[in-house]
Amino acid sequence: MPLCAGTLPSTKQMLSTRPQSINAPAFSKAHSSFYQVLRASCTRGNARTLIVQATDRTVMIGLAADSGCGKSTFMRRMIGVFGGSPHAPEGGNPESNTLLSDMATVICLDDYHCLDRTGRKEKGVTALDPKAQDFELMYEQAKAIKEGKSIDKPIYNHVSGLLDPAETIKPPKIMVLEGLHPFYDERVRDLYDFKIYLDISDEVKFAWKIQRDMKERGHSLESIKASIEARRPDFEAYIDPQKKHADVIIQVLPTQLIPDEKEGKVLRVRFIQKEGVNFFKPTFLFDEGSTISWIPCGRKLTCSFPGIKFFYGPDTYYGEEVSILEMDGQFDKIEELIYVESHLSNTSAKFYGEITQQMLKNSQFPGSTNGTGLFQTIVGLKIREVYEAVVETTVKSAV
Amino acid sequence: MPLCAGTLPSTKQMLSTRPQSINAPAFSKAHSSFYQVLRASCTRGNARTLIVQATDRTVMIGLAADSGCGKSTFMRRMIGVFGGSPHAPEGGNPESNTLLSDMATVICLDDYHCLDRTGRKEKGVTALDPKAQDFELMYEQAKAIKEGKSIDKPIYNHVSGLLDPAETIKPPKIMVLEGLHPFYDERVRDLYDFKIYLDISDEVKFAWKIQRDMKERGHSLESIKASIEARRPDFEAYIDPQKKHADVIIQVLPTQLIPDEKEGKVLRVRFIQKEGVNFFKPTFLFDEGSTISWIPCGRKLTCSFPGIKFFYGPDTYYGEEVSILEMDGQFDKIEELIYVESHLSNTSAKFYGEITQQMLKNSQFPGSTNGTGLFQTIVGLKIREVYEAVVETTVKSAV
Repeated sequence: MPLCAGTLPSTKQMLSTRPQSINAPAFSKAHSSFYQVLRASCTRGNARTLIVQATDRTVMIGLAADSGCGKSTFMRRMIGVFGGSPHAPEGGNPESNTLLSDMATVICLDDYHCLDRTGRKEKGVTALDPKAQDFELMYEQAKAIKEGKSIDKPIYNHVSGLLDPAETIKPPKIMVLEGLHPFYDERVRDLYDFKIYLDISDEVKFAWKIQRDMKERGHSLESIKASIEARRPDFEAYIDPQKKHADVIIQVLPTQLIPDEKEGKVLRVRFIQKEGVNFFKPTFLFDEGSTISWIPCGRKLTCSFPGIKFFYGPDTYYGEEVSILEMDGQFDKIEELIYVESHLSNTSAKFYGEITQQMLKNSQFPGSTNGTGLFQTIVGLKIREVYEAVVETTVKSAV
Repeated sequence: MPLCAGTLPSTKQMLSTRPQSINAPAFSKAHSSFYQVLRASCTRGNARTLIVQATDRTVMIGLAADSGCGKSTFMRRMIGVFGGSPHAPEGGNPESNTLLSDMATVICLDDYHCLDRTGRKEKGVTALDPKAQDFELMYEQAKAIKEGKSIDKPIYNHVSGLLDPAETIKPPKIMVLEGLHPFYDERVRDLYDFKIYLDISDEVKFAWKIQRDMKERGHSLESIKASIEARRPDFEAYIDPQKKHADVIIQVLPTQLIPDEKEGKVLRVRFIQKEGVNFFKPTFLFDEGSTISWIPCGRKLTCSFPGIKFFYGPDTYYGEEVSILEMDGQFDKIEELIYVESHLSNTSAKFYGEITQQMLKNSQFPGSTNGTGLFQTIVGLKIREVYEAVVETTVKSAV
């Protein structure tokens, strides 16, 4: 049942109304300056040189995760790889969920709610339910962006719970769609160049919620448990199954280094990397394709309790071949990561030490001493590599 | 109680009576040709160049192990590293236990029995009991060899159980003393440049004995058990404790890859390497000083059941710092070892692939597809390195 019908302006209305040309898309300034669009044909003597520069296209990245799972930290790390600092659209709605930076624009898929808070209450659906989401519009606008067209995208106001007037989004070099349902709709799914799923285990989610909602906001343990339980059916039905479509999954689990550790302070983080993904080579430890566990703490790197343990190995995930890189525990100092970095391969870093440099730069972000920060940073490098490969391929394919 | 007194010619009598000079030791031809002994002093203008070539000395290697534990295979692998094929002394006693090769001579310490089979029976001592061993003579002769002097060494005839007339042993480049008590006597112990202990676990010893004594020689299971039990007290009292003096221990255990495997066909072999030993750098896997487990079988190396698992890590052994390298399981083909070799460091190989080449050359020896063969080969390379370092140092120290 399409609950969304009629609740918002039609798809056609939401697509930007400014004049568009498929041959000459309206690039943003930043976009067009990166690869200039020009086409020329020269003849000099017998040699005929065809100079062709194609229009590069927006590279599409999807990031799926539950609310409160550190998507914003992730985005800030990712954007950090490309340089520049993320900021909200200037002069627009202060409740805009969009983040802009020099190269990337991040859209929050909550903006495609077709039911606002009241509407969801009336219809008895949660924000996790696809019925509250306008996939038609999401698809049309994502497709438009990928084709280099600007869009007028609605804004879901998280404060008021209402749908605010649209904001114009120009096609960036890299467009990130982050939210609850980036891979739910097959048409949207097929638009991505790289798909990421942040998978926080129930135990860790619970520990984090206790930290935030009980210790910081004074909620009761019972109300936290009740809120988690209430979300569970829809989460399991609609959000969780999307992870099988992701190219990489960052799975956050309680540590195995301390028996019965439940506080979520020490984490075991698994970086599940699909094999055979275009432009993506899984990061590995020491020996590609073998199975390794590594405790770097020893004679060269000393670690305080409970230490650090890495794992790497091939596996299957929803029937597909993956390589898993895992880090349990945390660094005493971020600088020590350089020792680990020296033993990782296919990180997509442009120079030795780049991961450590990024982690140091973002040291104030949560997770900077554990696997969440490490793998988020590597994913940032991977996105850069995918971006460069796609742009290169686009240019080449147009020749 | 010195049971040995008077049962054999005195130490003095056993030392070779041919003229000796400490300044000009009587080298064997092979010995003197390797490093020529010459001393000269040149003066040219203001520059005074002192050319000094010192007498190199015999490098002493000790190898301890119980009987029937593969010492002879070990020796053949070791000698293989230096080239040439081992042979018995020509024209001598056909029951000689000595092995000669181009560079190394191997002496069996059974030759220092002071009690023959009858004598031991009369006194009620086993061959494992130090009372049956003439440590005085062992020390004097080992010391003489190290000093470049020939010795006249007794021969214990394993067929007759009697002590046969002595054979003359010239000081080789490398002298290996192998047997039950190489590290029992402190004075002898101090003569070695490198000390090796082959430590076969009870389960594997039992499995091997069943294979050999029951299946091949028709002994009963009961008699095998009884013979092992009879040896145990003396073994534990006199042989086993020597391993704490060894620089490296090759420990052979049942596999952990197959639950309850007791046949001794699949082995877990641990190479325990002491830290801080002169001229010896422990071999490591991937990352020195850290703790690693590695299953090389995967996308690049496929292995049949039960596969192969390596372990590497720091540990302590009798209170001393060691590095342990472990291999559980076996290769399908020896050639596949090259894949493992590429990930080992500090092997003392002179070129990449030397370990695999050695293993292939000796493929007919027992243990060629498992850790016994691998670590014996590495120990061979280590002995070569110790030899070269000692000779080099001897030359240098004489300048």
